[in-house]
Amino acid sequence: MIDRVFYDADGELLIVPQQGAHRFVTEMGVIEAQPGHVVLIPRGVRFRVEIDGPVRGYVCENYGGPFRLPDLGPIGANGLANPRDFETPVAAFEDVDRPTQCVQKYGGRLWATTFAHSPLDVVAWHGNLAPCRYDTARFNTINTVSYDHPDPSIFTVLTSPSETPGTANIDFVIFPPRWMVAEHTFRPPWFHRNVMSEFMGLVTGAYDAKAGGFAPGGASLHNRMSGHGPDQASYEGAIQAELKPHKITDTLAFMFETRAPIRVTKWASESPQMQLDYDDVWSGFAKGQVK
Amino acid sequence: MIDRVFYDADGELLIVPQQGAHRFVTEMGVIEAQPGHVVLIPRGVRFRVEIDGPVRGYVCENYGGPFRLPDLGPIGANGLANPRDFETPVAAFEDVDRPTQCVQKYGGRLWATTFAHSPLDVVAWHGNLAPCRYDTARFNTINTVSYDHPDPSIFTVLTSPSETPGTANIDFVIFPPRWMVAEHTFRPPWFHRNVMSEFMGLVTGAYDAKAGGFAPGGASLHNRMSGHGPDQASYEGAIQAELKPHKITDTLAFMFETRAPIRVTKWASESPQMQLDYDDVWSGFAKGQVK
Amino acid sequence: MIDRVFYDADGELLIVPQQGAHRFVTEMGVIEAQPGHVVLIPRGVRFRVEIDGPVRGYVCENYGGPFRLPDLGPIGANGLANPRDFETPVAAFEDVDRPTQCVQKYGGRLWATTFAHSPLDVVAWHGNLAPCRYDTARFNTINTVSYDHPDPSIFTVLTSPSETPGTANIDFVIFPPRWMVAEHTFRPPWFHRNVMSEFMGLVTGAYDAKAGGFAPGGASLHNRMSGHGPDQASYEGAIQAELKPHKITDTLAFMFETRAPIRVTKWASESPQMQLDYDDVWSGFAKGQVK
Amino acid sequence: MIDRVFYDADGELLIVPQQGAHRFVTEMGVIEAQPGHVVLIPRGVRFRVEIDGPVRGYVCENYGGPFRLPDLGPIGANGLANPRDFETPVAAFEDVDRPTQCVQKYGGRLWATTFAHSPLDVVAWHGNLAPCRYDTARFNTINTVSYDHPDPSIFTVLTSPSETPGTANIDFVIFPPRWMVAEHTFRPPWFHRNVMSEFMGLVTGAYDAKAGGFAPGGASLHNRMSGHGPDQASYEGAIQAELKPHKITDTLAFMFETRAPIRVTKWASESPQMQLDYDDVWSGFAKGQVK
Amino acid sequence: MIDRVFYDADGELLIVPQQGAHRFVTEMGVIEAQPGHVVLIPRGVRFRVEIDGPVRGYVCENYGGPFRLPDLGPIGANGLANPRDFETPVAAFEDVDRPTQCVQKYGGRLWATTFAHSPLDVVAWHGNLAPCRYDTARFNTINTVSYDHPDPSIFTVLTSPSETPGTANIDFVIFPPRWMVAEHTFRPPWFHRNVMSEFMGLVTGAYDAKAGGFAPGGASLHNRMSGHGPDQASYEGAIQAELKPHKITDTLAFMFETRAPIRVTKWASESPQMQLDYDDVWSGFAKGQVK
Amino acid sequence: MIDRVFYDADGELLIVPQQGAHRFVTEMGVIEAQPGHVVLIPRGVRFRVEIDGPVRGYVCENYGGPFRLPDLGPIGANGLANPRDFETPVAAFEDVDRPTQCVQKYGGRLWATTFAHSPLDVVAWHGNLAPCRYDTARFNTINTVSYDHPDPSIFTVLTSPSETPGTANIDFVIFPPRWMVAEHTFRPPWFHRNVMSEFMGLVTGAYDAKAGGFAPGGASLHNRMSGHGPDQASYEGAIQAELKPHKITDTLAFMFETRAPIRVTKWASESPQMQLDYDDVWSGFAKGQVK
Repeated sequence: MIDRVFYDADGELLIVPQQGAHRFVTEMGVIEAQPGHVVLIPRGVRFRVEIDGPVRGYVCENYGGPFRLPDLGPIGANGLANPRDFETPVAAFEDVDRPTQCVQKYGGRLWATTFAHSPLDVVAWHGNLAPCRYDTARFNTINTVSYDHPDPSIFTVLTSPSETPGTANIDFVIFPPRWMVAEHTFRPPWFHRNVMSEFMGLVTGAYDAKAGGFAPGGASLHNRMSGHGPDQASYEGAIQAELKPHKITDTLAFMFETRAPIRVTKWASESPQMQLDYDDVWSGFAKGQVK
Repeated sequence: MIDRVFYDADGELLIVPQQGAHRFVTEMGVIEAQPGHVVLIPRGVRFRVEIDGPVRGYVCENYGGPFRLPDLGPIGANGLANPRDFETPVAAFEDVDRPTQCVQKYGGRLWATTFAHSPLDVVAWHGNLAPCRYDTARFNTINTVSYDHPDPSIFTVLTSPSETPGTANIDFVIFPPRWMVAEHTFRPPWFHRNVMSEFMGLVTGAYDAKAGGFAPGGASLHNRMSGHGPDQASYEGAIQAELKPHKITDTLAFMFETRAPIRVTKWASESPQMQLDYDDVWSGFAKGQVK
Repeated sequence: MIDRVFYDADGELLIVPQQGAHRFVTEMGVIEAQPGHVVLIPRGVRFRVEIDGPVRGYVCENYGGPFRLPDLGPIGANGLANPRDFETPVAAFEDVDRPTQCVQKYGGRLWATTFAHSPLDVVAWHGNLAPCRYDTARFNTINTVSYDHPDPSIFTVLTSPSETPGTANIDFVIFPPRWMVAEHTFRPPWFHRNVMSEFMGLVTGAYDAKAGGFAPGGASLHNRMSGHGPDQASYEGAIQAELKPHKITDTLAFMFETRAPIRVTKWASESPQMQLDYDDVWSGFAKGQVK
Repeated sequence: MIDRVFYDADGELLIVPQQGAHRFVTEMGVIEAQPGHVVLIPRGVRFRVEIDGPVRGYVCENYGGPFRLPDLGPIGANGLANPRDFETPVAAFEDVDRPTQCVQKYGGRLWATTFAHSPLDVVAWHGNLAPCRYDTARFNTINTVSYDHPDPSIFTVLTSPSETPGTANIDFVIFPPRWMVAEHTFRPPWFHRNVMSEFMGLVTGAYDAKAGGFAPGGASLHNRMSGHGPDQASYEGAIQAELKPHKITDTLAFMFETRAPIRVTKWASESPQMQLDYDDVWSGFAKGQVK
Repeated sequence: MIDRVFYDADGELLIVPQQGAHRFVTEMGVIEAQPGHVVLIPRGVRFRVEIDGPVRGYVCENYGGPFRLPDLGPIGANGLANPRDFETPVAAFEDVDRPTQCVQKYGGRLWATTFAHSPLDVVAWHGNLAPCRYDTARFNTINTVSYDHPDPSIFTVLTSPSETPGTANIDFVIFPPRWMVAEHTFRPPWFHRNVMSEFMGLVTGAYDAKAGGFAPGGASLHNRMSGHGPDQASYEGAIQAELKPHKITDTLAFMFETRAPIRVTKWASESPQMQLDYDDVWSGFAKGQVK
Repeated sequence: MIDRVFYDADGELLIVPQQGAHRFVTEMGVIEAQPGHVVLIPRGVRFRVEIDGPVRGYVCENYGGPFRLPDLGPIGANGLANPRDFETPVAAFEDVDRPTQCVQKYGGRLWATTFAHSPLDVVAWHGNLAPCRYDTARFNTINTVSYDHPDPSIFTVLTSPSETPGTANIDFVIFPPRWMVAEHTFRPPWFHRNVMSEFMGLVTGAYDAKAGGFAPGGASLHNRMSGHGPDQASYEGAIQAELKPHKITDTLAFMFETRAPIRVTKWASESPQMQLDYDDVWSGFAKGQVK
């Protein structure tokens, strides 16, 4: 991508690296990101990504209101993702007089032009619409310390609210390492169908509702009102487990949860990696058991 | 209190029994309460309290907006005190033709009149302004499962909001049994002074910031901008503790936290139980240690 | 009041003439008012009242937000008091060089100064903070056309909202001539006690919950949480009435309803017109009848 | 529809039976509905409809915010449709091991799958997103008891508000039996064109602005800014009527009123029941009469 | 356009005459408009435009919330466009019995019907949804009197807010004659790209960021996130100018600024007047100078 | 004030130095302030003021919501006081073991205790409730550049809003150096009386509505609904002035404007500096001239 830069006029980009080091060279400076980081590039900011080897990740293009921290409600003045942990770059620029192609996403399509120089030549900047990086290891995870299994909203890192309070345009939610101490409780996520569409990814480790079949770099999609829940193996394990404190470690799953239905592309639905037997994980439940 | 009933025209009453069984005979029916329960009597509802032996407790008279459940924010659809656990009585009445004194609190003073019969003769009722009981054992306690010590607002049972969002007229907060799993953290409440006035009581057990000197049935008061924090013994214990999961059990402290400064009555300030050496618990901290 | 003018810096004045013609000579012009009219003088506007014979009326001094029309909710775009019926005066002035005393109410007290001329010498004005007159005969009364007895809020002419939605600083409510058609219903106001304080007056005719004892020019006061309802005669009449359409005519009662408790002055409580047997009207109800 | 169930992931369903008994067998229990009832099935809830003979009705599929009761404004604490009259079913289930087809509406299209058993096997449920039934005979109709003709919003049963206050996504409005007592007034709905689109249906009886040509089971549509009003016969009757109290009985018309323009399907526009001479009812008005 | 009238059911029309006299004959009366005026025709109002010679202008069709005055914030009670300067016509009608074609824009298409008479025969009207005229010469222009160059929002005449505060559906902004006194400041509009799309037109004179190439009657379009700013000539002039008070006279530019991207029609993009070398005005800037 | 510190539990302090250098030694660090600066000390923060010679200034104790920047409305993203110009100190502490008296204002009274050391020994801090300094020379003054005289709200530096939008608890407003270019306008502040109480002070220079009689270090007070305006000399000057651009220089007046009436202390009303002939400045206006 040397001598080519990109910007998205249609939405901001939330990038979740899953493999390899990513170096975002932007108009405002340079952001180095590893798996475990997330990167937010505002709408209209030009950048180039530099890599040293194979990389992989997830991107959410947000057409709605900018991502921001959720209101914390009774959680108080601090908690979840704290503002001080979003790192903006120091100003940096390059003075390059080579022809540089500038690709823009506008109106759902890509457009290109060529400048005689690199447009990443912004010497200084002022303001608060800047790209930033967040290290998910700094997430102050809050959850039950008594009983029950709270909604995944308690894991919200960033939200793009809609005009309807309580119904996000899109939420970015993570499932990081944490203690599980709930008593008198079925600990994994429960069986449900709801109005929000859930796209999940896995950066590393295993997700506690999927004992198998959800590999790092993979993705699952449950569109609105599609019932789902833990697979049978996770279910069996959970109902037999002794409910002592248990630390979930070495894992990072996440969810893009949106009020919009998510359309699968032709490329994805025809991919050999499409998991056609996805719902077999729920086929063994005996009557009178759960469902 | 036989042949006498009471009602408060100035505010609703939040009652926290600390010792003995309380039987609230109200216009809408009968509520039996034990320590661990809290009882809410709306403004204007007439009632009588019946007891069988020594009883003791705390009362908050709320002149502001009625107590309600806090908005849960990212905690989601359920959590903290759940609506279904607030129990209203079934209708009950007495048909008594003895003279009954009716005492009213109105405009900060008490007024009395006598009826020829008990006014607790309401045969049926409809609506939602009714007395109710809540068992604190049903509180779904939420807290950190990673690091840090959240604000006490995370323990809010009921709130009377003011017209200024974020600044409650009064909050009712409990510190119930729960798991402590925070790592890299000083686990007791931290040292602070803030704009809210804090009245604390202890129903049973010990409070985790007061290793000594705070007995069940006692009360502490830190008015606005009065610095306070754990006593030295709690502090010493906390910084040396191994940070493994620890279940706090057999305790119930609570706080009435209000934006108003709380005035101490002459009766209280002259009481032999007034703890005149209250701030000695902080006198032993060495320089460079904490404060 | 010739050669003397008045203004109120503490609040606006809502005047309800009950007897005689009132002529309000103000800085913005002249308002002629009769019983049936109400007049609103904004805070700070200087005026003089001219009369031709005995006059009597009610005054509400509103320290809170200015009176405005209530939001109509499902009633729609028109209804209750319509904006076009509030009449502001055309500009008028007097050019008088006599000494004129100007009395001001400020901070709960009266202050006076003397000008060498009449200050009602404003030649023209522009804006919308002007005195106005409303003829209650133009009130578009809305009520049940099926069953039940709606809250008196449905008769609201003007409201001074507080910062708490649903709890007015003060409402001005009228009970004008109207059709009563409710079926399966006890038609008079029901027995109740509530958080608002109710000051009622009667401009003309009779009030449908007081068959006797409430004369034009009189006033009743039920402070917050003081139970009240129709007198026994009104009750007996209502439960025996045939529920055919009935037009209430030739009456105008009104209410100042406020979240504040209203204090009775020494002058009023010692007046020979004080009705000391006021609650006798409810003493004859037999058990099992209503209360 | 035995061995087939349906659910709508795109919106909730408001069903207005017009002829015959409908039995809704849902995941949460069974609802029996007759003409005069309306039934609300939330988004995503599976159900089957059982019938005993010819049935007919209207369905509104609401893609927006869930229907809720309107804020009552000055109408007060009770009025229009009261919350207590919305009836949810008691839990009920069937234990059927026959193959059952499950049809889903999702993304504007229908999708089907087959389960080995009936999914209406939910044994118990908890929460408030449940189907319900409302009997329109319980509507507490409010209207003018003086003069004028209020907006139809005063008949709102349920509203799905949009993000723009005052402009509903869709309102459900009924015109039930009620008293007409307005004086000095043209009593039928007036001539108008406005920004909302109006779909009307008639469950039983006659509608007071359509002396002819609007049969039970029929429908009329006036899209936004399409002028309309009473037909000439209704107009003539109204201007000559004596304005004494009149009870409108034995009728139930309703309106789905929405900010969206409503598109007519090909099937409807080509139906032999399409009323091609619809606007002839207004052709006879003489100049200078009304327009 | 005699014997033909038009109305727009899809949106209101904001008309900016640029050349010639326009006479709007509407249902509510007649509006005479010249360049310098703007005219607002509400959704659904029928009208005819009469002209005497060549006319030209701009039209904004607003599908969103109606244009209204912006909240003034710290500007206070008066400023920018004042309400009293929006002139509605006095009622006027024509009694014409000639066939008249009525053309409607509905659902993005044009539809026509023919009446036997002119529908502009409304004899009187009441309400506030009326066409109006505003003379931009009455705009109370506010700007810096110290340093810096405020956002163009400070020139807002009318706004159609969206449901997202701070992000207008569309704003109508003018750049009228005014004093420039900013010191220590680059006075023309700065270089920027932002989320709003900017359509500019020029009624008369010259625009201060375009020393050349922007003729009266022309238009420029910068869609969202398209960088732009003063041309080089304007830039050179501005950095060399002495910063003494300067009155900008004899000019009227305006902007339709919207959160929506604006699509160019085929007709416009193929017009011989399309300025294909538009961005040449920025090609001469030397490195290290501005960008 | 060495060995003595102060804090205010009742409100925050806004300090306007008028003469001499002030050194605020606070728990969070040191703030050096000169006339032209303003300093904000949050509620509860301990500090000491150090001086080198005679100093004088104004203090506003704000019991309400904390001062914040006003919403800018159409002024846009920048303007008036910009956030970046509020300077918080870097952390600083003193390690002093001398007895130090700590004086607290709480509940309207002063209370003192003595520590064995200076409490200004806070080594580091984190958060945003910190003292700060603002240099009024950085104020981006906005005003008319056409005609008319905007409300003083356009000069707002900081506002403490009340719960009633548009009615501040208190506003801090400055009248700094600026250009006056209004045409067709009486340029000084106009004659008015209004609901807000106005306390004015003068840091340096002259105020444009008081040609005489308002010295630096002085103060004027116009409580609510007290009419006032320019003195006669200012008036005469203004109506005869040529309305060309004029730069007001070398002046800094300010206003504390509040919805509360301000009570004058006994000390102030008995001061020999009390200006008993204050209203003589308005006594010379001839009839038909202005008032």
